[in-house]
Formats: sequence, structure tokens, C-alpha cells
Amino acid sequence: MRDAKPQVVLGIDPGTAVTGYGVVRKDGRNPLTLIECGVIRTKPRDDLAQRLSEIHDGVVELIRRHQPNVLSIEDIFYARNVRTTVVLGHARGVILLAAAQAGLEIHEYPPAEIKKAVAGTGAATKTQIQFMVMRLLRLKSAPQPNDAADGVAAALAFALMPDLPKIEPMRLRAIT
Amino acid sequence: MRDAKPQVVLGIDPGTAVTGYGVVRKDGRNPLTLIECGVIRTKPRDDLAQRLSEIHDGVVELIRRHQPNVLSIEDIFYARNVRTTVVLGHARGVILLAAAQAGLEIHEYPPAEIKKAVAGTGAATKTQIQFMVMRLLRLKSAPQPNDAADGVAAALAFALMPDLPKIEPMRLRAIT
Repeated sequence: MRDAKPQVVLGIDPGTAVTGYGVVRKDGRNPLTLIECGVIRTKPRDDLAQRLSEIHDGVVELIRRHQPNVLSIEDIFYARNVRTTVVLGHARGVILLAAAQAGLEIHEYPPAEIKKAVAGTGAATKTQIQFMVMRLLRLKSAPQPNDAADGVAAALAFALMPDLPKIEPMRLRAIT
Repeated sequence: MRDAKPQVVLGIDPGTAVTGYGVVRKDGRNPLTLIECGVIRTKPRDDLAQRLSEIHDGVVELIRRHQPNVLSIEDIFYARNVRTTVVLGHARGVILLAAAQAGLEIHEYPPAEIKKAVAGTGAATKTQIQFMVMRLLRLKSAPQPNDAADGVAAALAFALMPDLPKIEPMRLRAIT
């Protein structure tokens, strides 16, 4: 519904080394506002379980601080190296867990869909994304590093979706 | 060191639908004993975040109940379907997280290494694994379902490792 209660969207671009995030407020017809953005960094020398724990703690802390009602998270891009993708799956797992534990509504978008929502094309470059994030949120400079901008872009992908009325899925009944 | 304090090993064979587990007690020269084994099942109709939350809760509960000091977990087998493997990565992520949160020592073994430790060959069948798990732990029947036996096998892979004295890695110094 339009002009419904304000929504706070936590956008996340997951990574084991650097997880980018952006918190965006969507309030009816008012312009979207950026509340916070940044990155959760883990040390490459720490073992995976320790790094997952830091990512989970970081997301839990963001949820505690901003009380978002939506998590908008980048989906896996399958063309990467398989091992890298599987390790990334571990990181996504603990992020989804933090969101589920806090009862957030979860939306997942493939990277190309996020780029398209923000910059009009799934082939947008990092620079275009940074520029559009800056433009859409009326910021004086682009979020740094790139990963933070990607986190904000994930939040925008959800926030920019038109609020169309939901169509209930039809339930087919067997005719007996 | 031999005859050190007793160890409780939580073995896990991760899966999004069925996660098998086995808790094994290793107490010096005494025979290994099975404390509990079973599976954590999630509903295929639930969304991934919900299922991850149930897997995490299940593992947290097992750790609370048995206070293990070691997690021995099956590593990813990369020859599977990539998407399946990545989803499995999410499940492993929340299991490793539960272990890290509880301060467990974590050991990861590839499937073939677990089979070899338990049945002498990395090509052992499910039936061989079930038989050897039953044999090694002096059980009257094999753990059911297969996934529970696989969880026990993961615990055994660690528990059967000989306690060799640790050799400190040599630190090479540049000669200046």
C-alpha cells in the first residue's frame, strides 16, 4: 500500500572478508534517506568460524541499533569460482540467520537486478553504482569503500520497488 | 597427550533438509562411547532463513545439553551440483557459527577422509559406514537414518585420530 508506515531497510552485500551494508529509510512519498552505511571487515588470518561469528555479531548489532523491518540482500552470483561461492554461502547463511532471528522480512536480489534497479542496467559499473547511490540519496559524496555502496544499493533495490498491491496466489482445487 | 581429560565430540553431517549428528565421548584408553545421535530435520516448504534458524537452534541445543569441546564436521564435497553446494554452505555457516559462539575447537574433514577413518577406505558405502559405526561403538543396531550414522562417523573421524604430540611449525627467518 502507498503511504504505509515507514520502512527501514537493511541492505547487505555479503562477503567473508568485507560485508557492505546500508540502512535506508522509506517513508511514504518522502524521499528515501540514508541512515548509515559501512562495512564489516574480518581478518583473513582468522579461521572461517571466527569470521562468521564476527559477521553475525555485526549484523545483529546493526539490527539492534536501527530496528529495520526488511533485509534486502544480494543473491549469489554463480559464475564465480565455486570454492569462493561456497564460502560466500557460509557468510550469507549467518546473515540470513540474524535476520530470521530478529523476524525481518527477507528479500533477495541477484546482483544484476540490484544494478538495474539503481542504475537502469544490469551491466552498470562500480562507479555508476556509486554515482547513482549518491544521486538517489542526495549525498555529498559516494559511500566508500565500494562494498558500502553495494550494501546501500541492495537496500535501494527493495526501497525503489513500486508498492503494487499484492495479488494473492490462486489456489487451485481439484474438481472432484 | 594420551590419557588427557575426557573429550566430548559433536560430529555433524550438514544438510539443509536433514543434518545428521552424533555425540561421542573419548576418555583416555577407555572405549569410545556414543552419547546421542539423530537428525535435525527442516521443512522443505519453509524458506531458507527459517530453515537455517532451525538448524542453528538445533545445534545450540545439542551443545547446551552435552557441552562438547570439539565440533567435527564434514567438509564440502565440491563435485555436487553448484547450487546445492552453495545452499549447503549456508547450513554449514550457521553450524560453524553455533560452534564458534560456544568456543568449541573445530575440525573439518572431507567426506572421503571420514569414510577412511571409520571404514578404512574413502570409497566405503553407506552400509559399510553404518556397520563400522555400530562395530566401533558396540551398538546393537546401526544408527538410523543414514544421516545420523554420518554424523556419528564425523565424530569418530576426530575421535579415532591418534593423539600424537603436536609439532610446532618451524618459523623461517630471513637471514639478513
